[in-house]
Amino acid sequence: MSNFHVLAFAGSLRAKSYNRALLEASKRLAPEGMTIEIFDLGDIPIYNMDLEPDFPASVVAFKEAIKAADGLLIATPEHNFSFSGVLKNALDWASRPPSEGVLEGKPVALQSASPGWAGGVRSQLHLRQVLNFFSARQLYFPEVHVGAAHTKFDADLNLTDEMATTAITKQLAAFQDLIRRAKP
Amino acid sequence: MSNFHVLAFAGSLRAKSYNRALLEASKRLAPEGMTIEIFDLGDIPIYNMDLEPDFPASVVAFKEAIKAADGLLIATPEHNFSFSGVLKNALDWASRPPSEGVLEGKPVALQSASPGWAGGVRSQLHLRQVLNFFSARQLYFPEVHVGAAHTKFDADLNLTDEMATTAITKQLAAFQDLIRRAKP
Amino acid sequence: MSNFHVLAFAGSLRAKSYNRALLEASKRLAPEGMTIEIFDLGDIPIYNMDLEPDFPASVVAFKEAIKAADGLLIATPEHNFSFSGVLKNALDWASRPPSEGVLEGKPVALQSASPGWAGGVRSQLHLRQVLNFFSARQLYFPEVHVGAAHTKFDADLNLTDEMATTAITKQLAAFQDLIRRAKP
Amino acid sequence: MSNFHVLAFAGSLRAKSYNRALLEASKRLAPEGMTIEIFDLGDIPIYNMDLEPDFPASVVAFKEAIKAADGLLIATPEHNFSFSGVLKNALDWASRPPSEGVLEGKPVALQSASPGWAGGVRSQLHLRQVLNFFSARQLYFPEVHVGAAHTKFDADLNLTDEMATTAITKQLAAFQDLIRRAKP
Repeated sequence: MSNFHVLAFAGSLRAKSYNRALLEASKRLAPEGMTIEIFDLGDIPIYNMDLEPDFPASVVAFKEAIKAADGLLIATPEHNFSFSGVLKNALDWASRPPSEGVLEGKPVALQSASPGWAGGVRSQLHLRQVLNFFSARQLYFPEVHVGAAHTKFDADLNLTDEMATTAITKQLAAFQDLIRRAKP
Repeated sequence: MSNFHVLAFAGSLRAKSYNRALLEASKRLAPEGMTIEIFDLGDIPIYNMDLEPDFPASVVAFKEAIKAADGLLIATPEHNFSFSGVLKNALDWASRPPSEGVLEGKPVALQSASPGWAGGVRSQLHLRQVLNFFSARQLYFPEVHVGAAHTKFDADLNLTDEMATTAITKQLAAFQDLIRRAKP
Repeated sequence: MSNFHVLAFAGSLRAKSYNRALLEASKRLAPEGMTIEIFDLGDIPIYNMDLEPDFPASVVAFKEAIKAADGLLIATPEHNFSFSGVLKNALDWASRPPSEGVLEGKPVALQSASPGWAGGVRSQLHLRQVLNFFSARQLYFPEVHVGAAHTKFDADLNLTDEMATTAITKQLAAFQDLIRRAKP
Repeated sequence: MSNFHVLAFAGSLRAKSYNRALLEASKRLAPEGMTIEIFDLGDIPIYNMDLEPDFPASVVAFKEAIKAADGLLIATPEHNFSFSGVLKNALDWASRPPSEGVLEGKPVALQSASPGWAGGVRSQLHLRQVLNFFSARQLYFPEVHVGAAHTKFDADLNLTDEMATTAITKQLAAFQDLIRRAKP
């Protein structure tokens, strides 16, 4: 059985990010045959086209990591009815030549956590439109939306909510299937 | 006749930004009774909640400028079917307490330029959803979408396209009306 | 104190529609100074431009009712991540000349109920984009999203959920304010 | 070489629909190995869940046609910044049990024509969100957006615009590839 390597990143930089905590939970819940590595967006600077083509080292590393991955797992906070600037900024860098096609056909799954009831649903909708542009291969269901996030993790940010745990487990199994089908 | 002060900012940091050039054109085309000041987002760092409430000086200045303005004029590039991370990052900062309500009821007009045919239409749609969250008072028409932007400015980034010039002129007149009606 | 007349309609035609039931609840919960009348979309046929300008009687009645109203309250189901065809079809008729501007500046509030957890949030986002086109004057908050709708009404479709009742009550108070401010 | 059968339908019922005319043009421009059949949505009534499970004959025919097709080509007008009620109504019927999964993994390509400059771009964005719900397999590029449609067809609604003709030809070739890859 092949092992799939999944690159995960969260669109929030705070130390106690619930979205990053979702990725940590996913790491533990990943099915056999899937390894999840978390990439920290904290070193990626604000995008400016004038810096091209001398991409900052953090951006080069991000692009290489995307390229090498069998699939991406993105945890997106919802800020002001959309994804965070942090996340979009990283994707804007990722989309620039010479690796602009790096996301084409790439399997992608989404998760989000938010303090409000809606669990980042609006954020994911905007993100899916961006992923459409990339012609990424998106997993649509099962969805992982963790609302009232402050009630679903312990003080060390371990996921304690059973429903969310089940949703992530099912999502990762479906994601493994999607990656398998996407292989040439 | 009262003079309205409009704060303008562009979601692109490159020196030769077409979106910033739209704002420069707007400055020249503004009707009597409207002054447009351009704020440069270049100093605003990546958002991180852990930095709060000690906002960076650039962010404090941005929030103060928004608060003082009678209206906002935002020029948004379209990156990957949405607004830029640069722009969203600045708005994410702007939305944080203690000035989280600074955009409520604030008159806002949008412009966008893009090299493609669609003139940033997708970017504006996403931005409007964010502005909905803020309960900003948006101007919807006339729209300013400048497609094929590389053909519509001279080498010094002066707007040379007649149709775009007319659209901006009409938009700013409608914006002046909207600001007037929004005054208590 | 003036009395505001609000026209309400639901985007679902089934007899036991939760969305229509939200409107019935709103009728009972309306503050003093607001009367809510429910318009049934069941007689409005499928839109076909070739029928113009001889609008069907049901469409004429719908347009007249919109024109006469001080504000609109729309309850939108979510079908397939968007509003229903039923609702959009009625709005498509409403937008046709000679009364195409009937929604410009019109105060509008949204509600939605759905069996799923998300309470129609995606449906409302799409509907807001349509309302942007109309330059309607939208109420953004408080939101009314009633998820798990099958658990929140009794057998006669009376709303029994306290949280939803509170949300509607607060929304209608805010809507009354918006209508008042929108008056010339 | 296998022959792919594509089902096409337009979201406008008027006799002189530009969107239907795009489908007629596509029929003629289809590559060898692809046959396009146009399905007329004119007989599909307004959706009402109370009519289930006795689906009207036109709806049964529509669902059967979708099921039998190797791919779908949808031409969507833009009404009020979104798809038409006509189109959404047909898709709402299509999504109902017992054939609710009929669109899962189904290859889908989009076209749109509009009198305005934007060529239905907003309509396609909303439609893509609906197709996400269905987990359809969407073609993202090349896009077919025909703006200023009244200048691009002759009196008999033959497509006369060279750029649009090229776009459709390229789109159908890419769609053929997508269908091929989607085959188990």
